[in-house]
Amino acid sequence: MTDTFTGWAATTKDWGPTEFPCVVGHEIVGVVTRVGDKVTNIKVGDRGGVGPVAYSCEECDACLEGHQNCCERGFVGTYNGRLPNGDKTFGGYADKWRGDGRWVFKVPDSMSSADAASFFCAGVTTYAPLKKFNVNEKSVVGVLGLGGLGHFGVLFAKALGATVIGLSHNDNKKETAKELGCDDFINTHKASDLARYRKKFTHILCTGTSSDFQWDTYFALLRVNGHFMNVAAPDWNFPELSPLQLLINQISISGTAAGSPGTMQEMINFAAERGIKPWIATYKMSDVNNAISDFREGKPRFRFVLEN
Amino acid sequence: MTDTFTGWAATTKDWGPTEFPCVVGHEIVGVVTRVGDKVTNIKVGDRGGVGPVAYSCEECDACLEGHQNCCERGFVGTYNGRLPNGDKTFGGYADKWRGDGRWVFKVPDSMSSADAASFFCAGVTTYAPLKKFNVNEKSVVGVLGLGGLGHFGVLFAKALGATVIGLSHNDNKKETAKELGCDDFINTHKASDLARYRKKFTHILCTGTSSDFQWDTYFALLRVNGHFMNVAAPDWNFPELSPLQLLINQISISGTAAGSPGTMQEMINFAAERGIKPWIATYKMSDVNNAISDFREGKPRFRFVLEN
Repeated sequence: MTDTFTGWAATTKDWGPTEFPCVVGHEIVGVVTRVGDKVTNIKVGDRGGVGPVAYSCEECDACLEGHQNCCERGFVGTYNGRLPNGDKTFGGYADKWRGDGRWVFKVPDSMSSADAASFFCAGVTTYAPLKKFNVNEKSVVGVLGLGGLGHFGVLFAKALGATVIGLSHNDNKKETAKELGCDDFINTHKASDLARYRKKFTHILCTGTSSDFQWDTYFALLRVNGHFMNVAAPDWNFPELSPLQLLINQISISGTAAGSPGTMQEMINFAAERGIKPWIATYKMSDVNNAISDFREGKPRFRFVLEN
Repeated sequence: MTDTFTGWAATTKDWGPTEFPCVVGHEIVGVVTRVGDKVTNIKVGDRGGVGPVAYSCEECDACLEGHQNCCERGFVGTYNGRLPNGDKTFGGYADKWRGDGRWVFKVPDSMSSADAASFFCAGVTTYAPLKKFNVNEKSVVGVLGLGGLGHFGVLFAKALGATVIGLSHNDNKKETAKELGCDDFINTHKASDLARYRKKFTHILCTGTSSDFQWDTYFALLRVNGHFMNVAAPDWNFPELSPLQLLINQISISGTAAGSPGTMQEMINFAAERGIKPWIATYKMSDVNNAISDFREGKPRFRFVLEN
C-alpha cells in the first residue's frame, strides 16, 4: 500500500471541517485483493490507483456524458466523504482501501507504485487541462507555480511536445525549473523577464500563485487566442476582470477539476508510455509524522510518498 | 452608400477622445467604384461591406496567423484612426469611402445593402464566438442582453441549430425575445426563471449587461464545461472571480473582438445562405439628426440604417 503526502487539507482543515475519525490520503496505489461481481476494469493481482474521487452518481447529465469528476450531485471524496448508503470514506494512509471499482485505475506494469501514486491527483490535475486545451508541439506553455502540481505540469507539457517556461515569483526555483526540463524561467517580479516573453505564450497553466496576482501580468504574456488554464484553488479570489482586456487578445480563462475516469486511465497510460518520472521522496508509512514535519518545513521536491 | 447607426462612441466619447474633424460610421455598404492594382477579393460594380477595422499591419504574428482583428501593432479603426502614412480614417456617414481592400468584403447578391450593413460589426461580433466555440444543434445558448448585438446573437445561434434562451434583467423584452426566435426567456432577476435553467446552458453569449453583474448567477446556468463568451465592453469591470467556482464545473470565460477578414466574409456568406434578416429601421442619411434623437430615446429594434 502506497500513499502520497496529501493529508494537508484534512490535518489543517483548509478545505472545510473534518468529520473525525478520518483517514486522509487521496493518491493511493495498492495491489488489488478482491473485486466485486461487476468490476471489469481491474482484477485481483493488478495494481490499482485511486485519486481524489471515490464515487459519483452515474445518473446525472455530467456523469452520463463522462464528466463524473463534476458529478452534479457532488462527487464523494476519497476521504472525509459520505457514500449514498451513509458509509464514511477513508483514504490511503492505511493497510487496505475499499471503494467503487469505477474509480480505481490500472497502474501500468512499467511504473513503480511509488512513482505512480501522485499521478492520481496532482498528475491528472495538470494533464487534463493540457489535453483539453490541445497543448502540442506548437504550444508555448508558461507553468505558473513550480510545486507539487506545477512540476507535473512541466513534465506533461514537455511530453506533449510543447516549449515550456517555468514562472515563479522569485528566483528560488530557477535552477530547479531547468532541471525539470523547462526551456526557460521567468521571475514574475522582474520586468525584464516578463518583457522577453511578451505575447509569446499560447497557454498559461496556473498551478499556484500568490494573492498579489494581477491579470495584466499574465495577459501580457499571452498571444492572441491565448488560454489561461487554472487548476489552483487558493482561498482568495482572482481580482476584477476587464471585459475589454478579454476582448483585445481574445483571451480564454478556464478551470478544470482533476479528471474523469476516462482521463485518469488515459493519463497514467500516457505517463508510462512516455516514461514520465515524478520527483518524489519516500518515507515509511510508520514515519508519517516526520514526513508531515518535513512537509511543513517546505522540503518536498516535489511529492512525498508513504510506503507500507 | 449605406451606413448603420453606430456613431455613438464618437459622438459621446465613451471609448476615448475623438480627433476632429471626424466622420463616424463603421458598418458600411456601398458599390465599389475603384480598386487598386493588388485588390483581388472585390471588383468594380460589386457591393462592398466594411466593418470596424480599416487596416492591419499584415506583418505581426497575429496578422500572419489570420487574426488581423487582433493586430499586435493595433488595428486602425474605420474612423478616428491614423494609417501608417499619417492619413486619418473616416467612416461611412458619407457619400464615398476609401480604404484598404483587404478589409472590404463582398456583399452576397441575395442580401439588400440595408440588411447587410450592420452585419459588418454587430453581426460578426456575435457570429465569431458562436463559431469559435462550436455552437451547434446540440448547444443550449443563453443570449444575455437583447439589443443591437444580442438580437444578432439570437439569429446566428438559431441558424447554427442551437436552442436559444434570451436573458434580460427585466420582462420588457420577453415578447421580443420570442418574436426573434428565442425558445424561451429568462428574467435574470427572477429566481424561478433562473431555477428552470439551472445547469442547462452549454454557452452564454454576453452581449450586454448591467453593473449588478454576478458570476454566480450565470455560472449556475452553465453545464459542466460551459462557456461564458463575452463580447460586451462596458466601462466597468467584471467582479472578482472565485478560482474554485471556475474549477467545480470546469467553466471557461472568453472574449472575442469582432472578426478577422476570413471570418467576416464567412459570416456574411452564411447569413445570406441562411436568409438571416436583421431587424432594422431605415432613415435617410440627411435625416441623421432625427435618427440620433430616436436612438437616444432607446427606439432601435434593433439597428438603424442610414441611406443615401
